[in-house]
Amino acid sequence: MKHSHLPTFTVKPGSKVNLALHDTASTEGVKDKDAAEKQVKRNVQRLAELQEVLYAENKRSVLLVLQGLDTAGKDGTIRHVMTGLNPMGVDIISFKKPTEQELDHDYLWRIHKACPARGDITVFNRSHYEDVLVVRVLNLIGVAECRRRFEQINNFERMLTDNGTTIIKCFLHISKAEQRERLEERLHDPLKNWKFQPEDLEVRKHWNAYMGRGRAYEQMLSATSTEAAPWHIIPADRKWFRNIAVSSLLVSTLEGMRLKMPKPVKDWAKVKVE
Amino acid sequence: MKHSHLPTFTVKPGSKVNLALHDTASTEGVKDKDAAEKQVKRNVQRLAELQEVLYAENKRSVLLVLQGLDTAGKDGTIRHVMTGLNPMGVDIISFKKPTEQELDHDYLWRIHKACPARGDITVFNRSHYEDVLVVRVLNLIGVAECRRRFEQINNFERMLTDNGTTIIKCFLHISKAEQRERLEERLHDPLKNWKFQPEDLEVRKHWNAYMGRGRAYEQMLSATSTEAAPWHIIPADRKWFRNIAVSSLLVSTLEGMRLKMPKPVKDWAKVKVE
Repeated sequence: MKHSHLPTFTVKPGSKVNLALHDTASTEGVKDKDAAEKQVKRNVQRLAELQEVLYAENKRSVLLVLQGLDTAGKDGTIRHVMTGLNPMGVDIISFKKPTEQELDHDYLWRIHKACPARGDITVFNRSHYEDVLVVRVLNLIGVAECRRRFEQINNFERMLTDNGTTIIKCFLHISKAEQRERLEERLHDPLKNWKFQPEDLEVRKHWNAYMGRGRAYEQMLSATSTEAAPWHIIPADRKWFRNIAVSSLLVSTLEGMRLKMPKPVKDWAKVKVE
Repeated sequence: MKHSHLPTFTVKPGSKVNLALHDTASTEGVKDKDAAEKQVKRNVQRLAELQEVLYAENKRSVLLVLQGLDTAGKDGTIRHVMTGLNPMGVDIISFKKPTEQELDHDYLWRIHKACPARGDITVFNRSHYEDVLVVRVLNLIGVAECRRRFEQINNFERMLTDNGTTIIKCFLHISKAEQRERLEERLHDPLKNWKFQPEDLEVRKHWNAYMGRGRAYEQMLSATSTEAAPWHIIPADRKWFRNIAVSSLLVSTLEGMRLKMPKPVKDWAKVKVE
């Protein structure tokens, strides 16, 4: 499967991210919504095939990390890209505010417990990155501690990839105007109302602390895009473009793993079932 | 959606099960494989709709328990019936041989931890029922302890249903001849070889202790089919019939829950997003 028409969204390790240079509404490389939706369907089918081999092989695993502000489309990405995979090999972990028990441990404790088993694809809907984003914005940790955490996270992820987990990190990048539209939709569409949380408006007030030049997201993306686990900045104002971008990235990553069905055990051919 | 053409597979609470009276190859009420597969597709689509409301409602949950001997089709049921649901609201738990840590607790400890969160559908691929099946067949517990466990399980499940979990328990019923065919397929089909485990042949030697008249499965089905959480004996020699039976049961159960989208919060209509 070819996705060479899509540009790369990968943050080059060691580079300094400037989010203003990344168009949230980009549709580069895709003809239109219709073409995108067809391609997403094909991608999901291909993913389902690859997943079956990953599961049968039972040696390696895949971790997809989804980050983004409220309404950036984390849930929607999961619904569109992961529906159609065999749920036996898929785990979705939505990290909420830590419990008291979780707070009694280091911030990576609950993350590590939720990492994928061999053969599985796990999706983190929010992740340990909240521990260098929201806690930084709210000044619960200082600059020095944040820098230490970047290093700890890089080391942690390196340990995971060394042990057979392929990590794909996607930042779903939306504009402030697009977020307004989506929040208003949640407020006024009776079918979306249940998704609205008054806290979302509070978080929106901190938009600049998250997304501004040199602030939380740019720092985080610059410091934790590594060779082992690079970040991808996904233009996410258009949901159909976001879906094709993430699903194509998953397909090409899993294809790059050169997954193989385990070889049949020779002796078993002779076994007779009584 | 009407499934009135399918017979009921429910074990009447208090009745004595005689498995010989339940045809493993039944196709009653279904025209043919083709019609079944079409209906399964429609069922899965309907399930996806219902699941969305269950998730949005976020008050109740569904637990599907799958039991059956090796090759009975537990994995296949999950693949065919649960693929197409949003994995964010679906959790598949495959219980393996208990770990040492799990063995240091009562047998329901690991089960309780894995029960569905509000809004979720959880599938147990094997379950606490192994603790009255395999352990009974291997004589790791005696008759009296097994009887106590039946009561404990009934009380435990009653507590779950009282607290908002709807429990659907399916025993996938295959014949000994069908199991031979499926084991031989695993031995000889290179694409299925990875699923074969030599222990399966050992377990097959105990067929009668599991499936014989008055033995482990009949005792368990008779003792633990309750009003709160009845068992369903699913004819499973034909995979397409098994899939339509389980998916129809799920659809009618979720429809019976009268799920509703949460009501919009009136005050929110006035909120303005800055």
